[in-house]
Amino acid sequence: MPKKLRLMIPGPTPVPPAVQEAMSRPIMGHRSKEFARISEGLYHKLRQVLQTQNQVFILTSSGTGGMEAAVANTVNPGDKVLVLVTGKFGERWRDLARIYKADVIEMNFGWGNPVDLDAVKTRLDAEPGIRVVLATHNETSTGVVNDIAALGAMLRDRDTLLVVDAVSSLGGIEVRTDAWNVDVLVSASQKALMVPPGLAIISVSPRAWERIEVCRAPRYYFDLPAARKALAKWNTAYTPAVSLFYGLDAALDLILAEGLERVFARHRKLAAATRAAVKALGLELLPPEAAASPVVTAVRSPGGTDADALRKVLADRFGIYFAGGQGELKGRIFRIAHMGYVDEADILCAVATLEVALATLGFDVALGSGTAAAQRVFLEARGEA
Amino acid sequence: MPKKLRLMIPGPTPVPPAVQEAMSRPIMGHRSKEFARISEGLYHKLRQVLQTQNQVFILTSSGTGGMEAAVANTVNPGDKVLVLVTGKFGERWRDLARIYKADVIEMNFGWGNPVDLDAVKTRLDAEPGIRVVLATHNETSTGVVNDIAALGAMLRDRDTLLVVDAVSSLGGIEVRTDAWNVDVLVSASQKALMVPPGLAIISVSPRAWERIEVCRAPRYYFDLPAARKALAKWNTAYTPAVSLFYGLDAALDLILAEGLERVFARHRKLAAATRAAVKALGLELLPPEAAASPVVTAVRSPGGTDADALRKVLADRFGIYFAGGQGELKGRIFRIAHMGYVDEADILCAVATLEVALATLGFDVALGSGTAAAQRVFLEARGEA
Repeated sequence: MPKKLRLMIPGPTPVPPAVQEAMSRPIMGHRSKEFARISEGLYHKLRQVLQTQNQVFILTSSGTGGMEAAVANTVNPGDKVLVLVTGKFGERWRDLARIYKADVIEMNFGWGNPVDLDAVKTRLDAEPGIRVVLATHNETSTGVVNDIAALGAMLRDRDTLLVVDAVSSLGGIEVRTDAWNVDVLVSASQKALMVPPGLAIISVSPRAWERIEVCRAPRYYFDLPAARKALAKWNTAYTPAVSLFYGLDAALDLILAEGLERVFARHRKLAAATRAAVKALGLELLPPEAAASPVVTAVRSPGGTDADALRKVLADRFGIYFAGGQGELKGRIFRIAHMGYVDEADILCAVATLEVALATLGFDVALGSGTAAAQRVFLEARGEA
Repeated sequence: MPKKLRLMIPGPTPVPPAVQEAMSRPIMGHRSKEFARISEGLYHKLRQVLQTQNQVFILTSSGTGGMEAAVANTVNPGDKVLVLVTGKFGERWRDLARIYKADVIEMNFGWGNPVDLDAVKTRLDAEPGIRVVLATHNETSTGVVNDIAALGAMLRDRDTLLVVDAVSSLGGIEVRTDAWNVDVLVSASQKALMVPPGLAIISVSPRAWERIEVCRAPRYYFDLPAARKALAKWNTAYTPAVSLFYGLDAALDLILAEGLERVFARHRKLAAATRAAVKALGLELLPPEAAASPVVTAVRSPGGTDADALRKVLADRFGIYFAGGQGELKGRIFRIAHMGYVDEADILCAVATLEVALATLGFDVALGSGTAAAQRVFLEARGEA
């Protein structure tokens, strides 16, 4: 029997049938009126999901392309840039800032910890002239969510842009771009937005535009002024991934129909059940629970067990794909994504198969105990336990 | 979020991606050489799955159409026909035989029981001149599997045709058409064969052809001699459901690649886990365990609980679709299909959600206990518990 693929990795995530169907519509020319009409609606919906009045652009690239666009358009060579690193994607900000010749100040909070806001405030006060802060909302590599609202408040009265990687949070965790004072927000299609990979999303505040207009860093494909010019006609500077635009449009319809609040509550509930299950199984979360992500749960592999061996059992036997650890955490953690098109039954299935995989590897597991813990969370969520 | 549909009803069943992809190929003319080439391969594969040298036909109809074809081509008005009823689909044979004006002898073994072979033998001996026996291999309505091998052996030296409904068994439970002496076997696309509904399959033995050639019952669309004439050119008498032919061809490739023995073993394992789980939850199987079907498990609703209320919770909350009881069993049983494109993770998911649904309805359930029982079956299946 061909394996049933059950993606529980933090992107790409499962694609709803309505999105798949939308993407199968005939390709149209991207300079056509029809495409402009679809784009206009799409950008309108995107601004609702980003909770912003800023202009929002869609780039045909991965999320990393969106991150590069953010740096290449806002950071001049020699600019003092503070990078808040909490894992692999914070390091990516750092690497991008270095490549664009920024004067990089790295604050590294360690893989598994959130940003220490007090330390950031102290640093900002001690280090005048920081032009840009690069931050990660949901650090996918460690399952940590950072407090962007607090960061934004801290920067409100400074001449410092806040640039945020919301690649894996947008559509799963609340992102209040304007209320949080986020100047440039970057996201991507293949995470909680439930679309296949290929699109980056980027929003730009008026304050950011002032910097962009005088930014001398080299860029062409990712040039935001060119994107702005094209957007005036609901178009893109270069050829867009037309079918992914259809898919994103359909996915945003699903998100707005469910309602943002309900989408976020669903992710919180699935995360709570996942955490309850792994704890009941005697496993340990990587991050402190207060900073644990609503979209991906990072779990330390139980003593001596290779996390990647565990993942292999799950993939080979059950078609369940968890993510592994990256960098220094390789083999030491596994990550269960509950991001996007995921429901309670998916979590119960993941936990029940995890129990079998743990037993298979000789870990002393009380079969059914993690499942029961997740079930209790779901029953309580309806006041039924 | 749009509900994820998890079909665990005894047809239609989930369709594998490779089958879905095959069905999306461009439609071709059904009198073309290309279609004949596909058909030739398809009929060859079908004979392997039916384990027969007999001619096999594909009719564009549901399985009921295939059953009508079997009766309309073999039963003359006034023929003595013995119908072995173990549930709804045995009753359908009876109704068809009556409509075609047979002299119907009904042996009814009750919903939930298998055919009593000794009683059949006694009846055959007592009642000379029975021309046709109509039997059900897997009685979908009650989760009972009947011993067709024994029936076939009993009829080998009598001038009595054995006509078998293998609609829900073929591709999930072994069917040895020739070795079991089955004259006419009927199946359909949407059960263990993993194809959407729309095709019936029917095989005809040389002995059955002798009857068919002199059968005076009226039929046109379901006329098997017309089908035979068309099949000589790898064609069909009337327009076939072309895309479903593509799908069936792809599904048979999957089944033959997995290997018939492994397909049957997988179904037996999934059934064993399902039965272990429901018993661990204190629920009662409808049939005696020795006659319990490898493709669908029928479970009595726990004291006082309306099975349909339970099914509603599962469908509304988890997107899990179990079947209900039919006829006299409505509201009193639910049926979990593990038929076709189903794997271990599907069973664990179904059991874990069933536990939540039972708790939701106030049934005293030890959360996780059914899941653990199913997990143990899977661990033992690999010698790991």
